[in-house]
Amino acid sequence: MAKQPVFKKVLQVGIVVHDLEKAVRTYADDFGIGPWQFYNLDKSNMHDMKMRGEKAEFSMKVAFTDLGGVQLELIEPLDESIYSDFLREHGEGIHHIACGVRNFEETMASMQKKDIKVLLEGTTSAGMGYVYLDTTDALSCITEIYRIPENLQYIPPDKTYP
Amino acid sequence: MAKQPVFKKVLQVGIVVHDLEKAVRTYADDFGIGPWQFYNLDKSNMHDMKMRGEKAEFSMKVAFTDLGGVQLELIEPLDESIYSDFLREHGEGIHHIACGVRNFEETMASMQKKDIKVLLEGTTSAGMGYVYLDTTDALSCITEIYRIPENLQYIPPDKTYP
Repeated sequence: MAKQPVFKKVLQVGIVVHDLEKAVRTYADDFGIGPWQFYNLDKSNMHDMKMRGEKAEFSMKVAFTDLGGVQLELIEPLDESIYSDFLREHGEGIHHIACGVRNFEETMASMQKKDIKVLLEGTTSAGMGYVYLDTTDALSCITEIYRIPENLQYIPPDKTYP
Repeated sequence: MAKQPVFKKVLQVGIVVHDLEKAVRTYADDFGIGPWQFYNLDKSNMHDMKMRGEKAEFSMKVAFTDLGGVQLELIEPLDESIYSDFLREHGEGIHHIACGVRNFEETMASMQKKDIKVLLEGTTSAGMGYVYLDTTDALSCITEIYRIPENLQYIPPDKTYP
């Protein structure tokens, strides 16, 4: 066994949906899960976006809530991306888990050594970097990790529900 | 929003794989994630097994580890079940999340009212009941809940790795 776990903690479960508004209403109104924070993520508030290593533009609507210490993320793709690929190939479903790491740069170096490719990456306008690692073959799932700058100020959501 | 969340907490992420031994070795040897506890689950140590409401027999090899407070479960189906269906339709991937609930029986009653069907259910020889709820349409994922008897004695694993 490697000396230290590459991933320390499950932070988030990411679920791709066709209709974000409908999904959030069902979670909140029928199952009491929420409140949800909505964001539109696109080139207006994300930069350094790449898909499979190539510069790319993509956009999605997302909503976040906390479920007992693990974040749920619902994602509705608005154009072509790994999310729309997933919807087409699998239908709605759990797309990834995001995991905490000790050190983002060290983890990325370790992934490169293992020849783990990056599926998608970007940085939010608040400076938070995110990378989807193609651990599909190795770990049978996609994993996301974050580069969290010191003193990260979270951007306010576009809206919340309820 | 409903007064109380039906699901309180993400307890587990369940991942279906073709080859459990290989998957666990990769998680542990290459990514430092483990140790894993292995179980063979079949009619010798599970009872009251049903699939989609019908009495059924099915068997699988599973392995569990903790990743920062959330359990990872890797599942290799050994015969026909919702897991082999998933493998055939989707390939390897994240199959379900298991969530903590306030009260198992109340939750089941609330699910029946919402017409949420049960995909799979059973009870382990230690007396722990588990139910997979078909929340695919409602929540865009499958959710599992547990009936945990007082003084549950966990059964010892068949083996651990590493």
